[in-house]
Amino acid sequence: MNLSAEWVVGFVDGEGCFYVGINRHPEMSVGYQVLPEFRVVQHQRDVVVLYALKRFFRSGVVRQNHADRYELRIRKVSALMDVIAFFEQHPLKTKKRQDFLKFRDIVKRMQRNEHLNREGLQRIVAISLQMNREDKPQAKAILAELKATTG
Amino acid sequence: MNLSAEWVVGFVDGEGCFYVGINRHPEMSVGYQVLPEFRVVQHQRDVVVLYALKRFFRSGVVRQNHADRYELRIRKVSALMDVIAFFEQHPLKTKKRQDFLKFRDIVKRMQRNEHLNREGLQRIVAISLQMNREDKPQAKAILAELKATTG
Repeated sequence: MNLSAEWVVGFVDGEGCFYVGINRHPEMSVGYQVLPEFRVVQHQRDVVVLYALKRFFRSGVVRQNHADRYELRIRKVSALMDVIAFFEQHPLKTKKRQDFLKFRDIVKRMQRNEHLNREGLQRIVAISLQMNREDKPQAKAILAELKATTG
Repeated sequence: MNLSAEWVVGFVDGEGCFYVGINRHPEMSVGYQVLPEFRVVQHQRDVVVLYALKRFFRSGVVRQNHADRYELRIRKVSALMDVIAFFEQHPLKTKKRQDFLKFRDIVKRMQRNEHLNREGLQRIVAISLQMNREDKPQAKAILAELKATTG
């Protein structure tokens, strides 16, 4: 299955997700981990489309999401930079573009290692809380912790 | 917002729905109504995309679906024939294409007025039961009624 750039944009406008996870990670010196990922979830009947997207982006892993749903997930920062370059050249048309722009902002801050100090991390967590349309209780709690302990 | 054909295919592969409703309708001589529709549902924040799709297909109505969700809905058979011609020229890539092919079969049978006699209607209801991934208790009940009363 060959995918055109415009088909990929339309499909990701519908089914794609730009997500930044914020987790506690005591082994990291800053105590928290920032985990950006680009994800497309499909019913298992369309797993072939996920493999086609994996070939298109030349990166990622196709794995079970839950039950009968599968996902293509791209986490490697170098690969995410390619994904970002693609959607810069081929803009999303839905409001998902707002998430994409915040996602890009965070990944670029990570490239500058801003997630490795508390001030930079606090800014990244605050941006991540403006993304997606879901409550993020853990990220909110972590932002409160960072605010309480940052000079 | 201008939409390219390939973007529309990708977006509909993700978000579109080809649906055939089967309803009791005592005022029709056959007693039942077949209601095919093409539908795209979006959160209200992306209602502008629905209007862009309406312009693209030159047909349909944008209306509230429920709560904060809106839909573009195309029901007019002449307009559905244009939608069908578009997706014949620009094939869907996901398994949604299977629904599209059954939808096309039903709309073409309706153009031949097969839904106005009980044998033709029975065939159409049987096809509609193979579409979408949801239980259709009313259509199932109607098919049973048709089987019980058709010679």
